[in-house]
Amino acid sequence: MRTLYHTWLCPFSRKIRLQLAEKKLDFTLTFEKIWEKRPAFLEMNPTGQTPVLVDLDGTVVVGSIPIGEYIEEAYPQHPLMSSGPAERAEARRLICWFEDKFYHEVTHNLVFQKTIKRHIEKVGPDSNLIREGQTRIHDHLEYICYLTDHRKWLAGESISLADITAAAQLSAIDYLGDVPWSKHILAKDWYARIKSRPSFRSLLQDRYPALTPASHYHDLDF
Amino acid sequence: MRTLYHTWLCPFSRKIRLQLAEKKLDFTLTFEKIWEKRPAFLEMNPTGQTPVLVDLDGTVVVGSIPIGEYIEEAYPQHPLMSSGPAERAEARRLICWFEDKFYHEVTHNLVFQKTIKRHIEKVGPDSNLIREGQTRIHDHLEYICYLTDHRKWLAGESISLADITAAAQLSAIDYLGDVPWSKHILAKDWYARIKSRPSFRSLLQDRYPALTPASHYHDLDF
Repeated sequence: MRTLYHTWLCPFSRKIRLQLAEKKLDFTLTFEKIWEKRPAFLEMNPTGQTPVLVDLDGTVVVGSIPIGEYIEEAYPQHPLMSSGPAERAEARRLICWFEDKFYHEVTHNLVFQKTIKRHIEKVGPDSNLIREGQTRIHDHLEYICYLTDHRKWLAGESISLADITAAAQLSAIDYLGDVPWSKHILAKDWYARIKSRPSFRSLLQDRYPALTPASHYHDLDF
Repeated sequence: MRTLYHTWLCPFSRKIRLQLAEKKLDFTLTFEKIWEKRPAFLEMNPTGQTPVLVDLDGTVVVGSIPIGEYIEEAYPQHPLMSSGPAERAEARRLICWFEDKFYHEVTHNLVFQKTIKRHIEKVGPDSNLIREGQTRIHDHLEYICYLTDHRKWLAGESISLADITAAAQLSAIDYLGDVPWSKHILAKDWYARIKSRPSFRSLLQDRYPALTPASHYHDLDF
């Protein structure tokens, strides 16, 4: 069976879960306590981070960007990347925006600080960083508003891996109730569209020990 | 004319310069003072960072990962990515390793701190971060030794964008004389092979104002 290793609210693993589900590819989800630095896991990925995908033929693929590209190449059905190089470049620009800039400015400050940090760094959250994440998320939500005011989906007229990537990041923050949706209506409309897709169902059923999701987390009419 | 916007010792722009040269694609190199936040540049790339490529037909491509993939897709000659999804995934794993992990642990601490930081943050280098970069570079050079002890090039038997990416990062550090080559002989041998390629010549001729390169920087027998 195809296996995806993920961890607590990992936004990068969530992206791959959505992508596999959009492409109707079955997989088993395996929880990895990355802070335990399990030797067999480190052998697959020396960085010790999730996601890691082990495909049906045993191919091990490591990291969000490589796994995302690998799935599109190995399983071209239900494509999440356009066929032209320029359109693909725009989707990749936004994927990097959300996995690099958005992650470091927002998701890391909110989700990492409040959840997995105590396992990895053995200290509690830094309230300054949480405040920084709460401040910076507004500009990014406005950017989603701007993009979806000009295009149907983030990178163009079709849903792409850019939407999946951005929604995966936001879904982890939304679990904690930290997305100020009411102040960014077009971003909320875009998220409502993607949240109602069948691929999203498994994410909305996630429950982590000692961390109850926000009351609207699984509500499609939030 | 195809134009690549770069800045001082930017390792990501250096990767694209090498890639374009390996593929025999002509381009003009334009220096961008990214700290001036020029509106026309921000319009092309809202993150304000280099590299940005403007292709012959006016297509604007932004960021190292998207530009790298775009060039391989739009100009398949002299390929720098293998044809199989698993081999491509391994090259992409290493590209992410050097552009994310290596950059944040090493290049940012050494090159950014010593050069462009004073323009962007209006403060001098942080000596603790420089020391951290000087310490951490050893593990990465050992990883290059390990890989090239098992394979001809980093990702397999052919030179790939992974080699170009890693060499671009190291070339920026080498300009400053901060790569401890003598302690990591296999990594040095690998770098000597790539440094002697015609694609590297333009990088070795770079000279920045008020920043003289290390005496061995342009020497192929260093």
